[in-house]
Parts: sequence; structure tokens; C-alpha cells
Amino acid sequence: VITFRAIGYVENEFNEPVSQDTLRAAVSRIVLEPALAEGLQGLAPGSKILVIFNFHLAEGFGLLQYPRGDESRPKRGVFALRSPYRPNGIGVSEVELLAINGNVLSVRGLDAINWTPVLDIKPADGAR
Amino acid sequence: VITFRAIGYVENEFNEPVSQDTLRAAVSRIVLEPALAEGLQGLAPGSKILVIFNFHLAEGFGLLQYPRGDESRPKRGVFALRSPYRPNGIGVSEVELLAINGNVLSVRGLDAINWTPVLDIKPADGAR
Repeated sequence: VITFRAIGYVENEFNEPVSQDTLRAAVSRIVLEPALAEGLQGLAPGSKILVIFNFHLAEGFGLLQYPRGDESRPKRGVFALRSPYRPNGIGVSEVELLAINGNVLSVRGLDAINWTPVLDIKPADGAR
Repeated sequence: VITFRAIGYVENEFNEPVSQDTLRAAVSRIVLEPALAEGLQGLAPGSKILVIFNFHLAEGFGLLQYPRGDESRPKRGVFALRSPYRPNGIGVSEVELLAINGNVLSVRGLDAINWTPVLDIKPADGAR
């Protein structure tokens, strides 16, 4: 068993699951634990970052699932889907970093609802 | 605390940490738990996938670190780096899927050494 702790939480207007498209179009905030804010040095507004988070509301998983729950399409393997119902409930979104204010990041493109635990933040450019 | 289990392990020739560039140029195998192999349906060789893994050898972290350990460069925040020494030891690599044989994926571009626990696999194209 591998254990992690939330480094912060998502804040937005969505308290219940909504469509990916709706979530991604919205501006969300990531409220980082204040003690970790120094770790944001070098992230620049306008850049792309990866946000790794926990699908905290998703329970259980199927190895084969309908894409986006659409039963008119053939089922696919869970590892070929971004479904939250996975063996490990880990989500990854590439988002646009709009602003940083202290320990709060404003981002667009995040596929996570209000109060989602955030596990990690990385530059999207993997070369560093 | 959020807990996960390995869904499989990395197999390659590197038993000790080596440079990112060396790792990424190599072909690695991901040996998935056989019971999960059905979840690979729909992944096609030639496509790009995200591999989420645990930096299992990295202990501790610094909020500010030298990029790639290079002391000639200014320190940066850990969230602006891909360093393994992070609050949560989670790595994400976008890799090229070369082949699937049963529960074994061959990939190129993976930034992880032999026996690294794999936590998740996703299509790199986030639209599904």
C-alpha cells in the first residue's frame, strides 16, 4: 500500500459531478497548504501545469466501461479511458495557470470538482 | 491519508537512479497485474499514454531544489520541477506505447527505473 496526503484542495462552483466539458471551461482555484507555497517558485502565469488529484467521490471500478457512460459506444478498457472509476482513483489534468496569489493558484482546464484533494503539481513541460 | 496499490511494476535494465535522458531513451516494460489486463482493451500500439508511478526510492523533499541537482542554476520550487523529491512521490511520464502482449506493455520515454510501482495508465489524449 502506498500512502499520500493532500497538498491542497480544489475550489470551484461544482459540488456535484458535472460534464468534463463544463468543468474544463471553468476557472478553478487550487488552495495549497500554506506551508508548501514556497514550492510554487518558478511557476509562471500563462504556462501549462499538470495537476494530479484524487477522484475522491468515485467508488469501485470496472475493467471495461462505456466511454463517458455513453451506452451507444462500445465498452473500452479502463486504462484506455479517463473515467474516474479506476483501480487507483488518480486524475491528471493539464491546465493553464492563470495566476498565483500566495498559496492560491487560479487555473483553467481542471477536470475536478469542489473539494477535490490535490496530490501534486508539476510543470507540463517534462524537461526540467 | 489517501492509499493506493501498485497495479504493476516497471521492468528495465536500470536498478539504480540514472539520468532522465538515459531512462527516456530506453525501452521499458510495464508488467501489469494479470487480473487487470482486460483494462488495456482499446489501447493501440503507436499511441501515447500517461504512466503514473511512485518514486519509491526517493525519501524526503525540499521546497526549493536545484534543477536536476545542478548547483550552477538557481533553485526552483519543487512544483516547478519534475524532481522525485516531492511532498507526494508521484511521477507522470508521457510515453510511446510500442506493443502490448497480454499484461505486458512495452514503452519508450518512461522516466522510471526497474521495479518502480505503477499506479495508473491513461490515454495521453485527455478527450475520452
